[in-house]
Amino acid sequence: MEVELKGVLSDLEALRRSAPADQSDPIDKLQLRIQHLTNLAKSEPIRRSKVKNMSVEVVDSNPYSRLMALQRMGIVENYERIREFSVAIVGIGGVGSVAAEMLTRCGIGRLLLYDYDTVELANMNRLFFRPEQVGMTKTDAAVQTLQDINPDVVLESYTLNITTVQGFETFMSSLTNKSFSPNKEGSGVDLVLSCVDNYEARMVVNQACNELNQTWMESGVSEDAVSGHIQLLIPGETACFACAPPLVVASGVDERTLKREGVCAASLPTTMGVVAGLLVQNTLKFLLKFGYVSPYLGYNSLKDFFPTMEMKPNPQCSNSACLERQKEYMLAKPARDAAARAKKEAEALATVQGPLHDDNEWNISVVDDNETENDADGQSAGALPEGLVRELPSADEYQKPTVSEETNDKLDDLEELRRQLEALNADS
Amino acid sequence: MEVELKGVLSDLEALRRSAPADQSDPIDKLQLRIQHLTNLAKSEPIRRSKVKNMSVEVVDSNPYSRLMALQRMGIVENYERIREFSVAIVGIGGVGSVAAEMLTRCGIGRLLLYDYDTVELANMNRLFFRPEQVGMTKTDAAVQTLQDINPDVVLESYTLNITTVQGFETFMSSLTNKSFSPNKEGSGVDLVLSCVDNYEARMVVNQACNELNQTWMESGVSEDAVSGHIQLLIPGETACFACAPPLVVASGVDERTLKREGVCAASLPTTMGVVAGLLVQNTLKFLLKFGYVSPYLGYNSLKDFFPTMEMKPNPQCSNSACLERQKEYMLAKPARDAAARAKKEAEALATVQGPLHDDNEWNISVVDDNETENDADGQSAGALPEGLVRELPSADEYQKPTVSEETNDKLDDLEELRRQLEALNADS
Repeated sequence: MEVELKGVLSDLEALRRSAPADQSDPIDKLQLRIQHLTNLAKSEPIRRSKVKNMSVEVVDSNPYSRLMALQRMGIVENYERIREFSVAIVGIGGVGSVAAEMLTRCGIGRLLLYDYDTVELANMNRLFFRPEQVGMTKTDAAVQTLQDINPDVVLESYTLNITTVQGFETFMSSLTNKSFSPNKEGSGVDLVLSCVDNYEARMVVNQACNELNQTWMESGVSEDAVSGHIQLLIPGETACFACAPPLVVASGVDERTLKREGVCAASLPTTMGVVAGLLVQNTLKFLLKFGYVSPYLGYNSLKDFFPTMEMKPNPQCSNSACLERQKEYMLAKPARDAAARAKKEAEALATVQGPLHDDNEWNISVVDDNETENDADGQSAGALPEGLVRELPSADEYQKPTVSEETNDKLDDLEELRRQLEALNADS
Repeated sequence: MEVELKGVLSDLEALRRSAPADQSDPIDKLQLRIQHLTNLAKSEPIRRSKVKNMSVEVVDSNPYSRLMALQRMGIVENYERIREFSVAIVGIGGVGSVAAEMLTRCGIGRLLLYDYDTVELANMNRLFFRPEQVGMTKTDAAVQTLQDINPDVVLESYTLNITTVQGFETFMSSLTNKSFSPNKEGSGVDLVLSCVDNYEARMVVNQACNELNQTWMESGVSEDAVSGHIQLLIPGETACFACAPPLVVASGVDERTLKREGVCAASLPTTMGVVAGLLVQNTLKFLLKFGYVSPYLGYNSLKDFFPTMEMKPNPQCSNSACLERQKEYMLAKPARDAAARAKKEAEALATVQGPLHDDNEWNISVVDDNETENDADGQSAGALPEGLVRELPSADEYQKPTVSEETNDKLDDLEELRRQLEALNADS
């Protein structure tokens, strides 16, 4: 639109030069009008400007206030570290696109997006893509939406099929590119999320991650749309995708043609939204080191059942890179055990003597268990802030111990009890 | 933009009339150019046209193919019934907006949206709203996005606070309006979803639903952003929101001022996306009658733990409408039991004699358990379609019973065994 309007402006300029003097006034007015329209057209995509630091300030204009609040709530130690991380998402479909949007809204440092497909009306029963994006590549449409939502995120998109030879090469080189974080150990990304819809592509992600010793998470939704799962894969430490393959796989034919012969898989925005949410929640826990990262979490939506399990690597795995990683993991065991022991001993020492080290770069301090019952203002845990009242009596009122102090003293003294028992045994 | 360009066109027309004859050619050209720009500006919001019937056809241009596939997969009996249902969503925030988008993409018949708040940059850490919508009311922004996604859905928005006297009146009258489905029993909506963020608003939804005998679902996310829940409330049958109030509530002050005094609640797009997904999945199960609708489902994201429970109504509930519904539910018990018994007997009869009734309007038929092991093509369940091979030997190979045929025959004949036992007893 802007370019066309500029063309109109130069045409008007030409007209004015050739027109008689009494015509120049209305032409001037027209030029001003078109100038105004040009400015309007320019300002149409309203975007927020980039934010330099994530602020904790509680104002409506701060896009990060509700995320930084995770620190005040004691959930995350340093939320802003999220800007240092790179996450690769393979497959920008019903799960991948929503995962990308969630990470974008969380302010992830850098997102790498891989897909070769285009947006169709048939995708509109899942979240993220809009009907006006039909015909665009999924990568282009995703970048368009995501950069408007959060211009702070560095977006890289790769419109390619990772299961082709050239696609795999580009995939590998993009994962190893370290220009975003040159000092990072290992590959150039912190986590790979597999959100593809077929076995072949999963095996390719598995191959790449085994070769690069890259931790990744797998996700999937069933063909009947009512169940799904996420899985954490750490090369050498957990089962890889080839260690325990699915029982039925396509052989010698393109899985996509199998799927599309007159019928298609069912899908629901709900199941895919839940799987994307669980996937990114575990991504946040993994990156920002809080909570428990599930090795495997299933979702059976018909029963609202969430199975979990753990899988050790298969020593007879058909993937040679997996066997390499397994060997490395075994060889590093003594060092890992020693480090765990040292950490435990240091913690025990710190509890007794307080922090000893000058280089306490994480500001780790030890808090007495009894102290945590009082909050920062010195109020006891039972007291409520002004304006809040208990709707029912405090639970403690019902739980007051009824044991007398005398009995209590005796029962507590297990050492005494043991000695009495030994005396009895000696008598008999 | 369109209006401004029309202004330019009429200015050009005036210019042409007053200009000398040799100037008319370039002015004509300019007019054509502006005409072209007007058409461009007009076509900008590309929307798909409405769809009359949901088609099962598997083509890229069918927005419902993946949903109608739920029928072929045997999950849902009649997916298209979704167009008959009305769902009210109270609170269009981090959970409500995503729930609205999911239902819109599923092709729900009618959505009623209630909120009084405006979109802020501070909402951008959750899904749905976009930065260019900042300053719009949440209802207007939601309608703008949702009608583009699916023009088949009837959208009604109410920019009001249901906790005010007038807001409550409008809320009640909108729920009882039956113009969308005049023959529906009960209120004008099939389900109310509560997606509000405070106790007071939940109590108002509870009051309305108890008065109208309206089934509803409650949802919530914790202030630390890492857990949430959904709950099904059927007046008289399950606990209402007042039957078991939360332990701590605001007293005499506006909860929102409590929350905003310098601090704010944390929130995450992941937790809210998961809660919205679980909420709408249970909504679909409830409306389309498939799977199990959870009475209560929690989500503890730190542990990936999903607690469930059931709550009976409190006979001492403080809400008088709840007590009314409880009385009605008790009085209807004999009729309910009789209906359940009759249904069971009819089913037992049908199993023996086959369908007896001419008025089998749901086309219910009884399938022999043994028959289900063969699929429609007469293949046994163990056989795979062309192109698929087993990656591992069939599980049956490991589970072949080792019992000899002779023993097997005898064990199967329980009647024979019973007679032998009786004979033994008679001897002794």
